[in-house]
Amino acid sequence: MGQYGDIKLFSGNGNLPLAEGVANYLGMELCGRQIIEFPNENLFVKLNRSVRGQDCYAIQSTSRPVNRNLMELLILLQTLYLDFAARLTAVVPYMCYARSDKKDQPRVPITARLVADMIEVAGTNRYILMNLHAGQIQGFFKIPGDVLTAYHMLTDDMKQKIAMKKVKDPVVVSADLGFAKQARNIAEELGIPLAFIEKRRSGNDANAKALSVIGDVQGHDCFLCDDEVDTAGSMSNDINLLIESGATSVHTYFVHPVFSGPAVDRLTSTKATQFTTTDSIEVPEKDFKRFDGRLNIISVASLLGEVISRVNRGVSVGSLFHE
Amino acid sequence: MGQYGDIKLFSGNGNLPLAEGVANYLGMELCGRQIIEFPNENLFVKLNRSVRGQDCYAIQSTSRPVNRNLMELLILLQTLYLDFAARLTAVVPYMCYARSDKKDQPRVPITARLVADMIEVAGTNRYILMNLHAGQIQGFFKIPGDVLTAYHMLTDDMKQKIAMKKVKDPVVVSADLGFAKQARNIAEELGIPLAFIEKRRSGNDANAKALSVIGDVQGHDCFLCDDEVDTAGSMSNDINLLIESGATSVHTYFVHPVFSGPAVDRLTSTKATQFTTTDSIEVPEKDFKRFDGRLNIISVASLLGEVISRVNRGVSVGSLFHE
Amino acid sequence: MGQYGDIKLFSGNGNLPLAEGVANYLGMELCGRQIIEFPNENLFVKLNRSVRGQDCYAIQSTSRPVNRNLMELLILLQTLYLDFAARLTAVVPYMCYARSDKKDQPRVPITARLVADMIEVAGTNRYILMNLHAGQIQGFFKIPGDVLTAYHMLTDDMKQKIAMKKVKDPVVVSADLGFAKQARNIAEELGIPLAFIEKRRSGNDANAKALSVIGDVQGHDCFLCDDEVDTAGSMSNDINLLIESGATSVHTYFVHPVFSGPAVDRLTSTKATQFTTTDSIEVPEKDFKRFDGRLNIISVASLLGEVISRVNRGVSVGSLFHE
Amino acid sequence: MGQYGDIKLFSGNGNLPLAEGVANYLGMELCGRQIIEFPNENLFVKLNRSVRGQDCYAIQSTSRPVNRNLMELLILLQTLYLDFAARLTAVVPYMCYARSDKKDQPRVPITARLVADMIEVAGTNRYILMNLHAGQIQGFFKIPGDVLTAYHMLTDDMKQKIAMKKVKDPVVVSADLGFAKQARNIAEELGIPLAFIEKRRSGNDANAKALSVIGDVQGHDCFLCDDEVDTAGSMSNDINLLIESGATSVHTYFVHPVFSGPAVDRLTSTKATQFTTTDSIEVPEKDFKRFDGRLNIISVASLLGEVISRVNRGVSVGSLFHE
Amino acid sequence: MGQYGDIKLFSGNGNLPLAEGVANYLGMELCGRQIIEFPNENLFVKLNRSVRGQDCYAIQSTSRPVNRNLMELLILLQTLYLDFAARLTAVVPYMCYARSDKKDQPRVPITARLVADMIEVAGTNRYILMNLHAGQIQGFFKIPGDVLTAYHMLTDDMKQKIAMKKVKDPVVVSADLGFAKQARNIAEELGIPLAFIEKRRSGNDANAKALSVIGDVQGHDCFLCDDEVDTAGSMSNDINLLIESGATSVHTYFVHPVFSGPAVDRLTSTKATQFTTTDSIEVPEKDFKRFDGRLNIISVASLLGEVISRVNRGVSVGSLFHE
Amino acid sequence: MGQYGDIKLFSGNGNLPLAEGVANYLGMELCGRQIIEFPNENLFVKLNRSVRGQDCYAIQSTSRPVNRNLMELLILLQTLYLDFAARLTAVVPYMCYARSDKKDQPRVPITARLVADMIEVAGTNRYILMNLHAGQIQGFFKIPGDVLTAYHMLTDDMKQKIAMKKVKDPVVVSADLGFAKQARNIAEELGIPLAFIEKRRSGNDANAKALSVIGDVQGHDCFLCDDEVDTAGSMSNDINLLIESGATSVHTYFVHPVFSGPAVDRLTSTKATQFTTTDSIEVPEKDFKRFDGRLNIISVASLLGEVISRVNRGVSVGSLFHE
Repeated sequence: MGQYGDIKLFSGNGNLPLAEGVANYLGMELCGRQIIEFPNENLFVKLNRSVRGQDCYAIQSTSRPVNRNLMELLILLQTLYLDFAARLTAVVPYMCYARSDKKDQPRVPITARLVADMIEVAGTNRYILMNLHAGQIQGFFKIPGDVLTAYHMLTDDMKQKIAMKKVKDPVVVSADLGFAKQARNIAEELGIPLAFIEKRRSGNDANAKALSVIGDVQGHDCFLCDDEVDTAGSMSNDINLLIESGATSVHTYFVHPVFSGPAVDRLTSTKATQFTTTDSIEVPEKDFKRFDGRLNIISVASLLGEVISRVNRGVSVGSLFHE
Repeated sequence: MGQYGDIKLFSGNGNLPLAEGVANYLGMELCGRQIIEFPNENLFVKLNRSVRGQDCYAIQSTSRPVNRNLMELLILLQTLYLDFAARLTAVVPYMCYARSDKKDQPRVPITARLVADMIEVAGTNRYILMNLHAGQIQGFFKIPGDVLTAYHMLTDDMKQKIAMKKVKDPVVVSADLGFAKQARNIAEELGIPLAFIEKRRSGNDANAKALSVIGDVQGHDCFLCDDEVDTAGSMSNDINLLIESGATSVHTYFVHPVFSGPAVDRLTSTKATQFTTTDSIEVPEKDFKRFDGRLNIISVASLLGEVISRVNRGVSVGSLFHE
Repeated sequence: MGQYGDIKLFSGNGNLPLAEGVANYLGMELCGRQIIEFPNENLFVKLNRSVRGQDCYAIQSTSRPVNRNLMELLILLQTLYLDFAARLTAVVPYMCYARSDKKDQPRVPITARLVADMIEVAGTNRYILMNLHAGQIQGFFKIPGDVLTAYHMLTDDMKQKIAMKKVKDPVVVSADLGFAKQARNIAEELGIPLAFIEKRRSGNDANAKALSVIGDVQGHDCFLCDDEVDTAGSMSNDINLLIESGATSVHTYFVHPVFSGPAVDRLTSTKATQFTTTDSIEVPEKDFKRFDGRLNIISVASLLGEVISRVNRGVSVGSLFHE
Repeated sequence: MGQYGDIKLFSGNGNLPLAEGVANYLGMELCGRQIIEFPNENLFVKLNRSVRGQDCYAIQSTSRPVNRNLMELLILLQTLYLDFAARLTAVVPYMCYARSDKKDQPRVPITARLVADMIEVAGTNRYILMNLHAGQIQGFFKIPGDVLTAYHMLTDDMKQKIAMKKVKDPVVVSADLGFAKQARNIAEELGIPLAFIEKRRSGNDANAKALSVIGDVQGHDCFLCDDEVDTAGSMSNDINLLIESGATSVHTYFVHPVFSGPAVDRLTSTKATQFTTTDSIEVPEKDFKRFDGRLNIISVASLLGEVISRVNRGVSVGSLFHE
Repeated sequence: MGQYGDIKLFSGNGNLPLAEGVANYLGMELCGRQIIEFPNENLFVKLNRSVRGQDCYAIQSTSRPVNRNLMELLILLQTLYLDFAARLTAVVPYMCYARSDKKDQPRVPITARLVADMIEVAGTNRYILMNLHAGQIQGFFKIPGDVLTAYHMLTDDMKQKIAMKKVKDPVVVSADLGFAKQARNIAEELGIPLAFIEKRRSGNDANAKALSVIGDVQGHDCFLCDDEVDTAGSMSNDINLLIESGATSVHTYFVHPVFSGPAVDRLTSTKATQFTTTDSIEVPEKDFKRFDGRLNIISVASLLGEVISRVNRGVSVGSLFHE
Repeated sequence: MGQYGDIKLFSGNGNLPLAEGVANYLGMELCGRQIIEFPNENLFVKLNRSVRGQDCYAIQSTSRPVNRNLMELLILLQTLYLDFAARLTAVVPYMCYARSDKKDQPRVPITARLVADMIEVAGTNRYILMNLHAGQIQGFFKIPGDVLTAYHMLTDDMKQKIAMKKVKDPVVVSADLGFAKQARNIAEELGIPLAFIEKRRSGNDANAKALSVIGDVQGHDCFLCDDEVDTAGSMSNDINLLIESGATSVHTYFVHPVFSGPAVDRLTSTKATQFTTTDSIEVPEKDFKRFDGRLNIISVASLLGEVISRVNRGVSVGSLFHE
């Protein structure tokens, strides 16, 4: 038994298969709870068993339906808190509102800070997040937490492609300038060159974007990388641009498959060889099938499971990443 | 100009007609703001003009879609806070999750406290609420606030019916035992008798309820009162029971027309003479029409407007209620 | 040893016999402490032994002398906090100021929230309370806590009276409309009817009250129920009214015997058969005797002791109530 | 009107004559409020008029009955806070529990910090205190405040005695070593010598004290100074010792006339020429008479009134003390 | 007079000329204060005049000596807070520890959050910062604040160079991949191309870096941009690389001239045409001279002054930036 | 293993020999950490190993360089907090800014409260301090802590001198009136007389001080006591005055050897027989030598070590002092 009791694993409805994967890794069942939506849409939680004096983890991806999933998480956390959890950890593989992380124009919110505050005010002691758009979001929390990265998994996949000679003269392409530094790290680890896609407003139309490639991609196989894919507008244009610019092939990599609105349509209509991502967000079976084998989902369940086990036992998490 | 600047009135999408009514009462426009839902369902707020040093009010009924409306409110509040509002008041004519106000069984949340905490953590200084299910929810807030009552308006309507002899030998019937004390106050003010509907679990079926009337209703016109009507299961059964028990007529009164699921179906199929309520929650036009004139909505816009005006000027609100 | 060390049981002077009963149930002694009142009335606490790293419980009923008992509790809590208690639980069988729980008129306090805040600011981690006037007071605390109920004990006593045929055709009578819902629960559990006493202001005199019975009591044995009895003005009038209304007998039930001012005089002069209550508040021996056998006090010491034991061991408390 | 509205002056029952003196200085009335003690000893406050948007001051000396006066203060503060005071200042001429200001032995409280926390948690924005036993208590508050000194008034009285040649060869005697530094300041301001009374435990009896004078008092008129007089055990012994040691006369000075238990007996039985103090605590008329003209009470009402006026207008308070 | 009183401008010793420039813009003097360093290195602050009820601003660049300047700022803030400032704003043109903004490896601090917490705990209500390394640091504060940008000033200088044909075929070069997005914004505003310098670890030596240019610079005049220059190791290498890569000229732009250790040596030994920066940090006269005219310092005094004036008057700051 | 894990001992650079002494007492090594000062003077901390779930102690004397040492402590504390220490204790043998503990004049800070707040905001759970200038500083912390005293060690040294007849007719002399009470305690424990040094401003020069002895020192060996020695201006004058006043010898005792500026010069030029102090602050070897054997340093390492061991095991610390 850990210092704070036994692991008690709870899950919201945000990503049940992932939560079950975590439980499976840990050799346990998800703890029973009812999450009810009343006719007036108010959510209600009831735990099947007391968690008094136990080490509780609430797993919830705050993907669509975003606000419902977020409230589910918060109510679940408060329920565990009020039922006397010895320690309470929010496990959020995908954190909503993470892109609203600064006032880059006047009179707008910093919703990521609001979400952090709401998680804390519910009685949470620790958090476990995964690949934030900006690492600084750690500093929005007063409570300490672990931010895990799935880039090791994505990079391993790239390494394998290189080793198996599935690609030649590969180059890492950063899909967004905000991702430039992370892309450099990946390129550095692989020992291959780096290029960028730049987007600018074009003409008078605020939404029209002119894309250009900075760096050399002609005759290269491209690893096009980003942290997440939302509507895939950028990503699909990037792929087309790379192909037009003479790239031999495009393999895309991203951690969070948000896949909003036309995303699946757009991606499946490109000539990208493969889309590699994780199950931080659940991709519906019917969407998965439409990729016709081109969507490669690497599970983070064992990563989350191992981290939870270490947190419970008071063992280093950082060493898991060889840091 | 008040101590905290001029009134700046903002509204979420929860109940725009009411917010416009409030603005109208105050002789001003609602302040411009954009509320955008991105394709990934993340909400975003941008104010059209700076509110630096102003006395800001964010009006939002947290009715359906509940979790979206709640997040809209919270993000709007934080945006106003971060834009340096001199004072920030949350105006919530209908507060969601207000019935989750205590642990009346183990291992459940107190979501109303969570909502109060979230409103505070967004940077709010004051709140204005209306007819809480339990007045004690005031104590869930650390910040001070006003809880307004619309019972005066409902009681005035009953008085008028009595004065105009539309009813005779009227009796106040409390639709729920949790409403007993408030029903007594209404009966006392009108100087008429009081009766109760009691519900009990019936047999082995947890949902089956046996209803009975405690007190005398036969030959009386009944004012059937409650704080809100949700799915109208109770309310419609109550009406039927009163009619069966010999009531001459049933006029129902309630502040919040939540009207979830089958509510409109159920109410319109009863023999109640009239349903009197307020616009704390917006009733869609098509639902309104189905009542065929039996739904009487009294607006609380001028009440909210007058209170906001007094709060801004630092004038007593209590005296508005002759207290 | 529990997760937070061994149980260390401390008591203020509010209800020492009950505290000793709790200690007795747990097979331990109350921990030694000095509580001194200096000539200037300032209270001072000194613990006889260090509680560093222990699981500490401060038991105090905040009955008369109310403000002194409350300060005793708060100073005792802070002393334990500053002496490095590993966990600190306030055990308050009767909480003063609990009826000041909302602003039901303008310009009044919510003293119950103030008391909750004061308990928290003293460094307390958990609370154990018993039968609050309004369950919502749980939401006044940020820290989690257990609110115990003694209604099971009172209901068991009623059941026994029914089983032993000491009463026939019994009916539950709610002494106050604020107690209506709880009275319904009792009636439902016993499977017997329910009636109410209604009080209204009478004429111009604010204090004069007109009482009436709603529901059927004639020829019934009445279980007259409330949460507490203060000056017994209401309770004694209720008893008289029931007798006048044809009740065969009146057995009264209430958790907290506050017994202020003329209470004992009033109760002993009624024709009630029996008064059943608990020892959440100590009834002085001389008052007890005046009831001449009609006062039946059920001890909550073993309930509190069992709960403390479970809290210490991290075992479910809810299951104690078969919930 | 000040930045925070008009001055609204409220008083508890701790020292009404002083509060009236303050109101008088400010040319206003005390604001109407009811403070009710219910039969169950619970206190209740109701303000006669709204204080919304006003600059509120709650005056209360927390002398005997200490715990009641303290709770009166806290409830009054919360009532003003919840009634939307624009700014809320606690004015406490005498602060109870101020001597419990550090753990000078293990397992004891720091009650002065608890009191500071309770004042803050009630919603207070500012404090005004007077002559603390230890100035460091300012640091117990998070909110800013003014700590006033009445030593100027006492020193002025000494100066006048010197100027009028009522004393000759005067010497300041510090009644307590904890007062040594303050006594030096007084002696320095007057330009006269300084002496000390030292107390030690004597023999095995913990309460027996051996007194000795350190410094020269023979043939001198003594100004025996301390911050407060409680039971007067020390003070009366000090006076006797000084007389025995050859002092020509003893004039005692202290700010707070706590006068617990035998204090008046003890003081009136000494040969001290005069006892000069303030009205920070009310001395009952019957006690005052027993001093037969030897008790000289200097009022701090105008000092408090002037400070409140300056605080309201945003004018320097420090300059009032020529600092 | 603003809502919170008159502007009272205080400065630490971090950058007095800038503070004087701000005061000058506002047509006022810096307020008098003593900042004393005792022989034991403890700092002490004393204000010359009361700031009760005034709108106070504490200006301090937390450049070298970093920890002393930071403590000066914090003590100055607390002094103003405890002297009853009506509103208290920390104005920090250069914020120390801003690069320690996330745990990008295990077991390290997030010192920027600690600094934000310390500023808040000193009693500060608002902050004004300038060009943070990561805009997300705004979210480290609970209090609202303005983060100003000097990029408009730098971009205006570039535009002028273009307009006056001092450069031809100019290209914006981002000195660091973390600056990529900001560099794109500058390039977009100027309507010119963008390039990047990439740095990688080289060989086994952790400190050795291999630089490469991504994008086209040959035959171009380069605007080499970054947020700050610290030891100038990167910057001087970048300049050399650009020259080697065929750049016609290099004009460097950065907001904060940190200039640690060998920075001045390194920069002055490059072939850069000009170094344009601001006075957010004071550059010592002797260092300035060594640049022999190549160092162009644009003052942010009027920007800060205008913002402070607007904050005091409650006027939009965002509109100052045409946003 | 203690309740909060194993002891993990970390030290800043403030007093490494003392920290090593503590580690030695506990039979362990100091935990590895890097403390780096970047060229821009920003400090950075990295722990060598994870402290997740461990009982961590950060030892740091905040002596010169004061502000750097303080920041080192705070950053170290935050690093341990963010690395998930199960419990985090700040061990500060000498606390800087402790003399700034009250506003004894207007418009000055209470820096000791600011330091306490900063220690708490870094995530600290407990503190261990040693001989504060004013014990009340305990009340500046919300978290509980131990304030240790080294007076027992100093008094033991005096007792030994008496027992070994190295002194005769000894008298305790309080070097400062603020130390009077503590000096009395020492004199009482030794059973010897007490005297005082009084300092007053002399003439118009604010810095000139006139000293006088109150009490009898002629023909006595003097134990001149204070809590710390800073520049030694007072202390050296006191020694000279005592010698001039006929003292046979002067042995000085003080806990904290701050030794600022001319302190060593001044002390070594007096005729004091011996200076007895502790290693709460490190005295540089070269300063130590200049005392030529007259400086007697008693180590507090074993005291700190024993206290840490007891805190870890949850064993009484007070009993260590026979209290």
